[in-house]
Amino acid sequence: MKKVVLIRHGESTWNKENRFTGWTDVDLSEKGVEEAHKAGQLLKKEGFHFEKAYTSYLKRAIKTLNIVLDEMNLDWIPVEKSWRLNEKHYGALQGLNKAETAKKYGDEQVHIWRRSYDVPPTALAKDDERSPFVDPRYKGVNENDLPLTESLKDTVARILPYWNETILPSLKEYDEIIVAAHGNSLRGIVKHLKNISDEDIPGLNLPTGIPYVFEFDDNLKAVKDYFLGDPEVIKKLMDAVANQGKSK
Amino acid sequence: MKKVVLIRHGESTWNKENRFTGWTDVDLSEKGVEEAHKAGQLLKKEGFHFEKAYTSYLKRAIKTLNIVLDEMNLDWIPVEKSWRLNEKHYGALQGLNKAETAKKYGDEQVHIWRRSYDVPPTALAKDDERSPFVDPRYKGVNENDLPLTESLKDTVARILPYWNETILPSLKEYDEIIVAAHGNSLRGIVKHLKNISDEDIPGLNLPTGIPYVFEFDDNLKAVKDYFLGDPEVIKKLMDAVANQGKSK
Repeated sequence: MKKVVLIRHGESTWNKENRFTGWTDVDLSEKGVEEAHKAGQLLKKEGFHFEKAYTSYLKRAIKTLNIVLDEMNLDWIPVEKSWRLNEKHYGALQGLNKAETAKKYGDEQVHIWRRSYDVPPTALAKDDERSPFVDPRYKGVNENDLPLTESLKDTVARILPYWNETILPSLKEYDEIIVAAHGNSLRGIVKHLKNISDEDIPGLNLPTGIPYVFEFDDNLKAVKDYFLGDPEVIKKLMDAVANQGKSK
Repeated sequence: MKKVVLIRHGESTWNKENRFTGWTDVDLSEKGVEEAHKAGQLLKKEGFHFEKAYTSYLKRAIKTLNIVLDEMNLDWIPVEKSWRLNEKHYGALQGLNKAETAKKYGDEQVHIWRRSYDVPPTALAKDDERSPFVDPRYKGVNENDLPLTESLKDTVARILPYWNETILPSLKEYDEIIVAAHGNSLRGIVKHLKNISDEDIPGLNLPTGIPYVFEFDDNLKAVKDYFLGDPEVIKKLMDAVANQGKSK
């Protein structure tokens, strides 16, 4: 049985400060590092043997992956990084505190920005210091593809070509693959694999640092999915993510 | 000016225990981790902007690279790993203590094994648990290429195709490249670039964790090389490596 394991990076320094992060390249917090170690230990214990890994251009996902692979003594496997696996771009909200933004604009507006499917936050200016147009890491990307803000719909639209053309076909060559990425880029993959509606996908809160396993049949159709770990812990983690946008 | 920076991994747990390591996949020691952080901070301060990285299949080199790139906020650049950048294979000596081996066989025999150009240590059996033939990470490698022991000459011979066909040509696309590897695999590259004789190359002791910069002209000919950092510190580090094989 072919397997793809999705893993959302552990807590970052801005998760901790409750700020909108998006494409900002913030580091893992100590807790986030610890979550990654635990995920790697669990995957090793459960007998996973990844042969290929994918991650984003953002260090919180890359470092989560590096720690997981190191715990599994799989440091040596090939890792491919793509901007298409980046977090949803949060436009002009990037850097702002979520609770303060909620106080200023109201819970409802922030909920719309965070959890509507197709309403993007206000866009960044192209020459804003936070813009991908001024960040050398994106100079190899077609300018028409680079976002200045994104709705979840936009994020899904830019991730799916990478899933369909790169990650999924690599299951022909490899039996087990890991994808270390972000809450919204992983929502895009899960939406596609489980055929979740536009209305329901914003309500899917993937827990951080918990391996999410998809099994595929010989036709590369996803036939089964499950989280690894203690179900009660996972439920608590998912609830915690859902409550982040509240002002109190 | 195009640049390639070579970096030898920092201290490993077996460097510390003074054991022959070779292809054994041992971790960095705390000191080795610290050396990597310092190297990354220095490279950042000196304004390097790597666009591509190469490393071996061994975690002490991979983790050195990951730490260096993280310090430089270059986690996102493409990293290619190759078994051809691995340390010299130390055959049946792998796992043995260097000083004890020197007591048992005499300083001279150990010096020959460690520092002659073309005398390999006793070979491993193909089915030895230390053999690359039983390690899944090498299953993609042509069996005729896999060693059971190596002289420095053998190590040089397997590294040069990778240098000539992969690393060097990538300077056409990239301006700055980093190669994180091992004492002997880097000797192979330096021997080639500086045209060092078979007699002299075993005496070249590259310091650990010190970036070694090579500059190339437009014809990809190496025209200048230098270590980054305090020359006195570098001299001491090179002497320390040279003295490792002594029984007292």
